[in-house]
Amino acid sequence: MRTLFNAEMADLAQDLIAMARHVETAITKTADAILTGDLELAQSVIADDAKLDELEDIVDERCVLLIAQQQPVGLDLRTIISSLRISASLERMGDLAEHIAKDARRAYPNSAIPDSHRQIIEDMCAAAKEAAGEVVKLLENRDLNVAAAIVEDDDRLDDLHEAAYQGLVAEGYAGTPQETLDVALLARYFERFGDHAVGISRRIVYLVTGDHSGDRAKI
Amino acid sequence: MRTLFNAEMADLAQDLIAMARHVETAITKTADAILTGDLELAQSVIADDAKLDELEDIVDERCVLLIAQQQPVGLDLRTIISSLRISASLERMGDLAEHIAKDARRAYPNSAIPDSHRQIIEDMCAAAKEAAGEVVKLLENRDLNVAAAIVEDDDRLDDLHEAAYQGLVAEGYAGTPQETLDVALLARYFERFGDHAVGISRRIVYLVTGDHSGDRAKI
Repeated sequence: MRTLFNAEMADLAQDLIAMARHVETAITKTADAILTGDLELAQSVIADDAKLDELEDIVDERCVLLIAQQQPVGLDLRTIISSLRISASLERMGDLAEHIAKDARRAYPNSAIPDSHRQIIEDMCAAAKEAAGEVVKLLENRDLNVAAAIVEDDDRLDDLHEAAYQGLVAEGYAGTPQETLDVALLARYFERFGDHAVGISRRIVYLVTGDHSGDRAKI
Repeated sequence: MRTLFNAEMADLAQDLIAMARHVETAITKTADAILTGDLELAQSVIADDAKLDELEDIVDERCVLLIAQQQPVGLDLRTIISSLRISASLERMGDLAEHIAKDARRAYPNSAIPDSHRQIIEDMCAAAKEAAGEVVKLLENRDLNVAAAIVEDDDRLDDLHEAAYQGLVAEGYAGTPQETLDVALLARYFERFGDHAVGISRRIVYLVTGDHSGDRAKI
Protein backbone atom coordinates (compact mmCIF):
# COMPACT_ATOMS: atom_id res chain seq x y z
CA MET A 1 0.00 0.00 0.00
CA ARG A 2 2.76 2.38 1.00
CA THR A 3 4.73 1.58 -2.17
CA LEU A 4 1.67 2.36 -4.27
CA PHE A 5 1.21 5.61 -2.37
CA ASN A 6 4.81 6.60 -2.97
CA ALA A 7 4.45 5.81 -6.66
CA GLU A 8 1.33 7.96 -6.84
CA MET A 9 3.03 10.84 -5.04
CA ALA A 10 5.88 10.56 -7.57
CA ASP A 11 3.34 10.66 -10.41
CA LEU A 12 1.79 13.77 -8.90
CA ALA A 13 5.21 15.44 -8.77
CA GLN A 14 5.80 14.47 -12.41
CA ASP A 15 2.44 15.94 -13.44
CA LEU A 16 3.36 19.27 -11.88
CA ILE A 17 6.73 19.22 -13.65
CA ALA A 18 4.92 18.52 -16.94
CA MET A 19 2.65 21.51 -16.30
CA ALA A 20 5.63 23.72 -15.46
CA ARG A 21 7.41 22.67 -18.67
CA HIS A 22 4.27 23.53 -20.59
CA VAL A 23 4.24 26.98 -18.98
CA GLU A 24 7.93 27.47 -19.80
CA THR A 25 7.26 26.63 -23.46
CA ALA A 26 4.22 28.93 -23.52
CA ILE A 27 6.03 31.93 -22.06
CA THR A 28 9.06 31.37 -24.30
CA LYS A 29 6.89 31.25 -27.40
CA THR A 30 4.67 34.13 -26.32
CA ALA A 31 7.71 36.29 -25.54
CA ASP A 32 9.06 35.67 -29.03
CA ALA A 33 5.60 36.28 -30.51
CA ILE A 34 5.13 39.63 -28.80
CA LEU A 35 8.68 40.81 -29.51
CA THR A 36 8.76 39.79 -33.18
CA GLY A 37 5.04 39.99 -34.04
CA ASP A 38 5.02 36.34 -35.10
CA LEU A 39 1.35 35.49 -35.66
CA GLU A 40 1.82 31.75 -36.08
CA LEU A 41 3.69 31.49 -32.80
CA ALA A 42 0.98 33.51 -31.05
CA GLN A 43 -1.69 31.20 -32.45
CA SER A 44 0.13 28.12 -31.21
CA VAL A 45 0.33 29.52 -27.65
CA ILE A 46 -3.40 30.24 -27.75
CA ALA A 47 -4.19 26.77 -29.10
CA ASP A 48 -1.92 24.96 -26.64
CA ASP A 49 -3.44 26.50 -23.51
CA ALA A 50 -6.26 23.94 -23.50
CA LYS A 51 -3.67 21.23 -22.87
CA LEU A 52 -2.58 23.00 -19.69
CA ASP A 53 -6.19 23.22 -18.52
CA GLU A 54 -6.49 19.46 -19.02
CA LEU A 55 -3.32 18.83 -17.07
CA GLU A 56 -4.69 20.92 -14.21
CA ASP A 57 -7.84 18.83 -14.13
CA ILE A 58 -5.77 15.64 -14.06
CA VAL A 59 -3.66 16.92 -11.17
CA ASP A 60 -6.70 18.06 -9.22
CA GLU A 61 -8.48 14.75 -9.66
CA ARG A 62 -5.34 12.84 -8.69
CA CYS A 63 -5.07 14.92 -5.51
CA VAL A 64 -8.67 14.29 -4.50
CA LEU A 65 -8.35 10.54 -5.14
CA LEU A 66 -5.04 10.35 -3.29
CA ILE A 67 -6.58 11.98 -0.24
CA ALA A 68 -9.74 9.86 -0.39
CA GLN A 69 -8.04 6.52 -0.95
CA GLN A 70 -4.83 6.92 1.02
CA GLN A 71 -5.93 9.27 3.79
CA PRO A 72 -2.52 10.87 4.07
CA VAL A 73 -1.54 13.03 7.05
CA GLY A 74 1.32 15.36 7.92
CA LEU A 75 3.78 16.31 5.22
CA ASP A 76 2.15 14.02 2.63
CA LEU A 77 -1.18 15.76 3.08
CA ARG A 78 0.41 19.20 2.96
CA THR A 79 2.28 18.20 -0.20
CA ILE A 80 -0.98 17.21 -1.86
CA ILE A 81 -2.77 20.40 -0.78
CA SER A 82 0.20 22.44 -2.01
CA SER A 83 0.07 20.56 -5.31
CA LEU A 84 -3.52 21.72 -5.78
CA ARG A 85 -2.42 25.31 -5.24
CA ILE A 86 0.63 24.95 -7.47
CA SER A 87 -1.44 23.48 -10.31
CA ALA A 88 -3.84 26.44 -10.06
CA SER A 89 -0.93 28.88 -10.28
CA LEU A 90 0.62 27.07 -13.24
CA GLU A 91 -2.71 27.09 -15.04
CA ARG A 92 -2.99 30.82 -14.40
CA MET A 93 0.56 31.42 -15.67
CA GLY A 94 -0.52 29.68 -18.86
CA ASP A 95 -3.53 32.01 -19.10
CA LEU A 96 -1.25 35.02 -18.78
CA ALA A 97 1.01 33.70 -21.56
CA GLU A 98 -2.14 33.28 -23.65
CA HIS A 99 -3.26 36.86 -22.92
CA ILE A 100 0.11 38.13 -24.14
CA ALA A 101 -0.20 36.00 -27.29
CA LYS A 102 -3.65 37.48 -27.91
CA ASP A 103 -2.17 40.97 -27.71
CA ALA A 104 0.42 39.97 -30.31
CA ARG A 105 -2.35 38.59 -32.52
CA ARG A 106 -4.55 41.67 -32.15
CA ALA A 107 -1.72 44.01 -33.10
CA TYR A 108 -0.59 41.91 -36.11
CA PRO A 109 0.84 42.85 -38.60
CA ASN A 110 2.03 45.68 -36.36
CA SER A 111 3.86 45.21 -33.08
CA ALA A 112 1.93 45.59 -29.82
CA ILE A 113 5.03 47.18 -28.30
CA PRO A 114 5.77 50.87 -28.92
CA ASP A 115 9.44 51.80 -29.31
CA SER A 116 9.28 53.77 -26.05
CA HIS A 117 8.78 50.53 -24.13
CA ARG A 118 10.55 47.93 -26.25
CA GLN A 119 13.55 47.60 -23.93
CA ILE A 120 11.36 47.25 -20.83
CA ILE A 121 9.16 44.59 -22.41
CA GLU A 122 12.25 42.75 -23.69
CA ASP A 123 13.60 42.73 -20.15
CA MET A 124 10.24 41.54 -18.79
CA CYS A 125 10.22 38.71 -21.35
CA ALA A 126 13.71 37.67 -20.27
CA ALA A 127 12.85 37.74 -16.57
CA ALA A 128 9.60 35.82 -17.10
CA LYS A 129 11.36 33.16 -19.19
CA GLU A 130 14.00 32.77 -16.50
CA ALA A 131 11.38 32.50 -13.77
CA ALA A 132 9.47 29.86 -15.73
CA GLY A 133 12.63 27.80 -16.26
CA GLU A 134 13.44 28.08 -12.57
CA VAL A 135 9.97 26.89 -11.59
CA VAL A 136 10.62 23.70 -13.60
CA LYS A 137 13.99 23.27 -11.88
CA LEU A 138 12.55 23.94 -8.44
CA LEU A 139 9.83 21.33 -8.90
CA GLU A 140 12.46 18.89 -10.15
CA ASN A 141 15.09 19.31 -7.44
CA ARG A 142 13.64 21.48 -4.65
CA ASP A 143 16.85 23.49 -4.52
CA LEU A 144 16.29 26.53 -2.30
CA ASN A 145 18.81 28.55 -4.30
CA VAL A 146 16.45 28.24 -7.22
CA ALA A 147 13.60 29.51 -5.03
CA ALA A 148 15.70 32.56 -4.19
CA ALA A 149 16.39 33.17 -7.90
CA ILE A 150 12.64 33.14 -8.59
CA VAL A 151 12.13 35.83 -5.96
CA GLU A 152 14.87 37.90 -7.62
CA ASP A 153 13.22 37.55 -11.04
CA ASP A 154 9.94 38.65 -9.51
CA ASP A 155 11.62 41.69 -7.97
CA ARG A 156 12.97 42.53 -11.43
CA LEU A 157 9.51 42.11 -12.94
CA ASP A 158 8.03 44.38 -10.26
CA ASP A 159 10.66 47.04 -10.95
CA LEU A 160 10.11 46.78 -14.72
CA HIS A 161 6.34 46.94 -14.23
CA GLU A 162 6.75 50.13 -12.23
CA ALA A 163 9.18 51.53 -14.83
CA ALA A 164 6.72 50.73 -17.62
CA TYR A 165 3.95 52.67 -15.86
CA GLN A 166 6.29 55.56 -15.02
CA GLY A 167 7.26 55.70 -18.69
CA LEU A 168 3.59 55.98 -19.66
CA VAL A 169 3.00 59.02 -17.45
CA ALA A 170 6.39 60.68 -17.99
CA GLU A 171 6.62 64.07 -19.63
CA GLY A 172 7.43 63.68 -23.29
CA TYR A 173 5.71 60.31 -23.67
CA ALA A 174 3.69 60.57 -26.86
CA GLY A 175 2.18 57.12 -27.37
CA THR A 176 -1.30 56.60 -28.72
CA PRO A 177 -4.04 55.41 -26.34
CA GLN A 178 -3.81 51.95 -27.99
CA GLU A 179 -0.08 51.84 -27.22
CA THR A 180 -0.69 53.00 -23.66
CA LEU A 181 -3.35 50.32 -23.22
CA ASP A 182 -1.09 47.61 -24.67
CA VAL A 183 1.85 48.52 -22.46
CA ALA A 184 -0.35 48.79 -19.35
CA LEU A 185 -1.77 45.31 -19.90
CA LEU A 186 1.44 43.61 -21.01
CA ALA A 187 3.32 44.96 -18.01
CA ARG A 188 0.53 43.81 -15.74
CA TYR A 189 0.49 40.29 -17.26
CA PHE A 190 4.23 39.86 -16.80
CA GLU A 191 4.07 41.21 -13.27
CA ARG A 192 1.33 38.72 -12.35
CA PHE A 193 3.32 35.94 -13.99
CA GLY A 194 6.15 36.68 -11.56
CA ASP A 195 3.75 36.76 -8.61
CA HIS A 196 2.54 33.26 -9.42
CA ALA A 197 6.10 31.97 -9.77
CA VAL A 198 6.90 33.36 -6.32
CA GLY A 199 3.72 31.82 -4.91
CA ILE A 200 4.85 28.41 -6.16
CA SER A 201 8.33 28.87 -4.83
CA ARG A 202 7.02 29.82 -1.38
CA ARG A 203 4.93 26.67 -1.22
CA ILE A 204 7.94 24.53 -2.10
CA VAL A 205 10.11 26.35 0.45
CA TYR A 206 7.48 25.66 3.07
CA LEU A 207 7.37 21.95 2.21
CA VAL A 208 11.16 21.68 2.32
CA THR A 209 11.87 23.80 5.39
CA GLY A 210 8.57 24.08 7.26
CA ASP A 211 9.02 27.85 7.16
CA HIS A 212 5.65 29.45 6.56
CA SER A 213 6.82 33.06 6.98
CA GLY A 214 7.01 33.79 3.26
CA ASP A 215 3.71 32.19 2.52
CA ARG A 216 1.53 35.29 2.29
CA ALA A 217 2.12 34.95 -1.41
CA LYS A 218 0.69 37.52 -3.78
CA ILE A 219 -1.30 34.92 -5.66
CA MET B 1 -17.25 11.84 16.06
CA ARG B 2 -19.69 12.45 13.24
CA THR B 3 -21.42 15.23 15.19
CA LEU B 4 -18.10 16.93 15.78
CA PHE B 5 -17.30 16.60 12.07
CA ASN B 6 -20.62 18.14 11.11
CA ALA B 7 -20.04 21.00 13.52
CA GLU B 8 -16.61 21.60 12.01
CA MET B 9 -17.99 21.53 8.47
CA ALA B 10 -20.58 24.11 9.58
CA ASP B 11 -17.80 26.27 11.04
CA LEU B 12 -15.93 26.04 7.74
CA ALA B 13 -19.04 27.19 5.86
CA GLN B 14 -19.41 30.10 8.31
CA ASP B 15 -15.77 31.11 7.82
CA LEU B 16 -16.29 31.33 4.06
CA ILE B 17 -19.43 33.42 4.57
CA ALA B 18 -17.45 35.74 6.86
CA MET B 19 -14.81 36.10 4.14
CA ALA B 20 -17.46 36.80 1.51
CA ARG B 21 -19.06 39.48 3.72
CA HIS B 22 -15.66 41.05 4.15
CA VAL B 23 -15.23 41.12 0.35
CA GLU B 24 -18.68 42.66 -0.07
CA THR B 25 -17.81 45.41 2.40
CA ALA B 26 -14.45 45.99 0.69
CA ILE B 27 -15.90 46.27 -2.81
CA THR B 28 -18.74 48.51 -1.61
CA LYS B 29 -16.33 50.86 0.13
CA THR B 30 -13.79 50.80 -2.70
CA ALA B 31 -16.50 51.54 -5.28
CA ASP B 32 -17.57 54.58 -3.27
CA ALA B 33 -13.94 55.60 -2.81
CA ILE B 34 -13.11 55.46 -6.50
CA LEU B 35 -16.34 57.18 -7.58
CA THR B 36 -16.22 60.00 -5.02
CA GLY B 37 -12.46 60.26 -4.46
CA ASP B 38 -12.91 59.60 -0.72
CA LEU B 39 -9.38 59.14 0.64
CA GLU B 40 -10.41 57.96 4.09
CA LEU B 41 -12.61 55.23 2.65
CA ALA B 42 -9.80 54.13 0.34
CA GLN B 43 -7.41 53.94 3.29
CA SER B 44 -9.81 51.80 5.27
CA VAL B 45 -10.14 49.29 2.41
CA ILE B 46 -6.34 49.09 2.19
CA ALA B 47 -5.99 48.65 5.96
CA ASP B 48 -8.76 46.05 6.21
CA ASP B 49 -7.32 43.70 3.59
CA ALA B 50 -4.96 42.14 6.14
CA LYS B 51 -8.00 40.80 7.99
CA LEU B 52 -9.10 38.91 4.87
CA ASP B 53 -5.63 37.41 4.51
CA GLU B 54 -5.88 36.19 8.11
CA LEU B 55 -9.30 34.67 7.46
CA GLU B 56 -7.89 32.83 4.45
CA ASP B 57 -5.13 31.34 6.59
CA ILE B 58 -7.69 30.23 9.18
CA VAL B 59 -9.84 28.55 6.52
CA ASP B 60 -6.85 26.84 4.93
CA GLU B 61 -5.59 25.52 8.24
CA ARG B 62 -9.07 24.33 9.18
CA CYS B 63 -9.33 22.45 5.87
CA VAL B 64 -5.99 20.69 6.33
CA LEU B 65 -6.84 19.69 9.91
CA LEU B 66 -10.31 18.49 8.92
CA ILE B 67 -8.84 16.24 6.25
CA ALA B 68 -6.05 14.95 8.50
CA GLN B 69 -8.20 14.29 11.55
CA GLN B 70 -11.50 13.23 10.00
CA GLN B 71 -10.31 11.62 6.77
CA PRO B 72 -13.42 12.60 4.87
CA VAL B 73 -14.33 11.04 1.52
CA GLY B 74 -16.83 11.76 -1.25
CA LEU B 75 -18.84 14.95 -1.08
CA ASP B 76 -17.36 15.99 2.27
CA LEU B 77 -13.85 15.80 0.85
CA ARG B 78 -14.87 17.67 -2.30
CA THR B 79 -16.54 20.34 -0.16
CA ILE B 80 -13.33 20.86 1.78
CA ILE B 81 -11.18 20.98 -1.36
CA SER B 82 -13.65 23.45 -2.89
CA SER B 83 -13.50 25.54 0.27
CA LEU B 84 -9.74 25.87 -0.19
CA ARG B 85 -10.30 27.14 -3.72
CA ILE B 86 -13.13 29.45 -2.70
CA SER B 87 -11.05 31.00 0.10
CA ALA B 88 -8.25 31.67 -2.40
CA SER B 89 -10.72 33.40 -4.75
CA LEU B 90 -12.22 35.49 -1.96
CA GLU B 91 -8.78 36.55 -0.83
CA ARG B 92 -7.95 37.56 -4.41
CA MET B 93 -11.23 39.52 -4.71
CA GLY B 94 -10.14 41.42 -1.62
CA ASP B 95 -6.78 42.16 -3.27
CA LEU B 96 -8.56 43.55 -6.31
CA ALA B 97 -10.73 45.80 -4.11
CA GLU B 98 -7.49 46.96 -2.48
CA HIS B 99 -5.89 47.70 -5.87
CA ILE B 100 -8.88 49.87 -6.78
CA ALA B 101 -8.61 51.69 -3.44
CA LYS B 102 -4.92 52.34 -4.12
CA ASP B 103 -5.83 53.90 -7.46
CA ALA B 104 -8.28 56.19 -5.66
CA ARG B 105 -5.57 57.10 -3.15
CA ARG B 106 -2.94 57.76 -5.83
CA ALA B 107 -5.26 60.09 -7.75
CA TYR B 108 -6.41 62.02 -4.66
CA PRO B 109 -7.42 64.86 -4.50
CA ASN B 110 -8.35 64.29 -8.15
CA SER B 111 -10.54 61.48 -9.38
CA ALA B 112 -8.91 58.44 -11.00
CA ILE B 113 -11.85 58.29 -13.41
CA PRO B 114 -11.93 60.55 -16.49
CA ASP B 115 -15.33 61.88 -17.50
CA SER B 116 -15.19 59.82 -20.69
CA HIS B 117 -15.41 56.63 -18.64
CA ARG B 118 -17.36 57.67 -15.55
CA GLN B 119 -20.58 55.94 -16.60
CA ILE B 120 -18.79 52.71 -17.48
CA ILE B 121 -16.89 52.58 -14.19
CA GLU B 122 -20.09 53.41 -12.29
CA ASP B 123 -21.77 50.49 -14.01
CA MET B 124 -18.80 48.24 -13.23
CA CYS B 125 -18.98 49.28 -9.56
CA ALA B 126 -22.69 48.43 -9.48
CA ALA B 127 -22.19 45.03 -11.13
CA ALA B 128 -19.26 44.15 -8.86
CA LYS B 129 -21.21 45.12 -5.73
CA GLU B 130 -24.12 42.99 -6.88
CA ALA B 131 -21.86 40.04 -7.61
CA ALA B 132 -20.22 40.33 -4.18
CA GLY B 133 -23.61 40.40 -2.43
CA GLU B 134 -24.71 37.39 -4.44
CA VAL B 135 -21.59 35.44 -3.49
CA VAL B 136 -22.55 35.95 0.19
CA LYS B 137 -26.09 34.76 -0.55
CA LEU B 138 -24.91 31.77 -2.56
CA LEU B 139 -22.61 30.61 0.23
CA GLU B 140 -25.46 31.07 2.72
CA ASN B 141 -28.23 29.29 0.84
CA ARG B 142 -26.73 27.52 -2.20
CA ASP B 143 -29.59 28.79 -4.35
CA LEU B 144 -28.76 28.04 -8.00
CA ASN B 145 -30.72 31.10 -9.15
CA VAL B 146 -28.17 33.19 -7.30
CA ALA B 147 -25.39 31.34 -9.12
CA ALA B 148 -27.04 32.27 -12.42
CA ALA B 149 -27.27 35.91 -11.36
CA ILE B 150 -23.53 35.93 -10.64
CA VAL B 151 -22.83 34.69 -14.16
CA GLU B 152 -25.02 37.50 -15.53
CA ASP B 153 -23.14 40.10 -13.50
CA ASP B 154 -19.89 38.70 -14.82
CA ASP B 155 -21.21 38.93 -18.39
CA ARG B 156 -22.06 42.58 -17.71
CA LEU B 157 -18.58 43.17 -16.31
CA ASP B 158 -17.02 41.54 -19.38
CA ASP B 159 -19.10 43.75 -21.69
CA LEU B 160 -18.25 46.88 -19.71
CA HIS B 161 -14.57 45.90 -19.69
CA GLU B 162 -14.66 45.59 -23.47
CA ALA B 163 -16.56 48.89 -23.78
CA ALA B 164 -14.00 50.62 -21.55
CA TYR B 165 -11.15 49.45 -23.80
CA GLN B 166 -13.05 50.35 -26.96
CA GLY B 167 -13.62 53.81 -25.52
CA LEU B 168 -9.88 54.21 -24.99
CA VAL B 169 -9.02 53.49 -28.60
CA ALA B 170 -12.05 55.23 -30.17
CA GLU B 171 -11.55 58.19 -32.44
CA GLY B 172 -12.04 61.39 -30.52
CA TYR B 173 -10.86 59.99 -27.20
CA ALA B 174 -8.53 62.60 -25.78
CA GLY B 175 -7.55 61.33 -22.34
CA THR B 176 -4.08 61.73 -20.93
CA PRO B 177 -1.81 58.66 -20.68
CA GLN B 178 -2.43 58.65 -16.90
CA GLU B 179 -6.18 58.52 -17.53
CA THR B 180 -5.76 55.78 -20.10
CA LEU B 181 -3.62 53.79 -17.66
CA ASP B 182 -6.13 54.28 -14.82
CA VAL B 183 -9.09 53.17 -16.92
CA ALA B 184 -7.19 50.18 -18.34
CA LEU B 185 -6.29 48.94 -14.87
CA LEU B 186 -9.61 49.69 -13.19
CA ALA B 187 -11.54 47.92 -15.92
CA ARG B 188 -9.20 44.95 -15.65
CA TYR B 189 -9.58 44.76 -11.84
CA PHE B 190 -13.36 44.78 -12.04
CA GLU B 191 -13.34 42.20 -14.82
CA ARG B 192 -11.13 39.87 -12.78
CA PHE B 193 -13.38 40.43 -9.75
CA GLY B 194 -16.27 39.06 -11.80
CA ASP B 195 -14.19 36.09 -12.96
CA HIS B 196 -13.48 35.10 -9.37
CA ALA B 197 -17.16 35.42 -8.41
CA VAL B 198 -18.05 33.09 -11.29
CA GLY B 199 -15.33 30.67 -10.26
CA ILE B 200 -16.84 30.47 -6.78
CA SER B 201 -20.34 30.05 -8.14
CA ARG B 202 -19.23 27.19 -10.41
CA ARG B 203 -17.68 25.35 -7.49
CA ILE B 204 -20.89 25.68 -5.48
CA VAL B 205 -23.00 24.55 -8.46
CA TYR B 206 -20.79 21.50 -8.77
CA LEU B 207 -21.17 20.65 -5.08
CA VAL B 208 -24.95 21.03 -5.26
CA THR B 209 -25.63 19.33 -8.60
CA GLY B 210 -22.51 17.27 -9.34
CA ASP B 211 -22.38 19.08 -12.70
CA HIS B 212 -18.76 19.76 -13.51
CA SER B 213 -19.39 21.15 -17.00
CA GLY B 214 -19.10 24.78 -15.98
CA ASP B 215 -16.02 24.20 -13.91
CA ARG B 216 -13.38 25.37 -16.32
CA ALA B 217 -13.61 28.57 -14.39
CA LYS B 218 -11.63 31.59 -15.50
CA ILE B 219 -9.85 31.83 -12.17
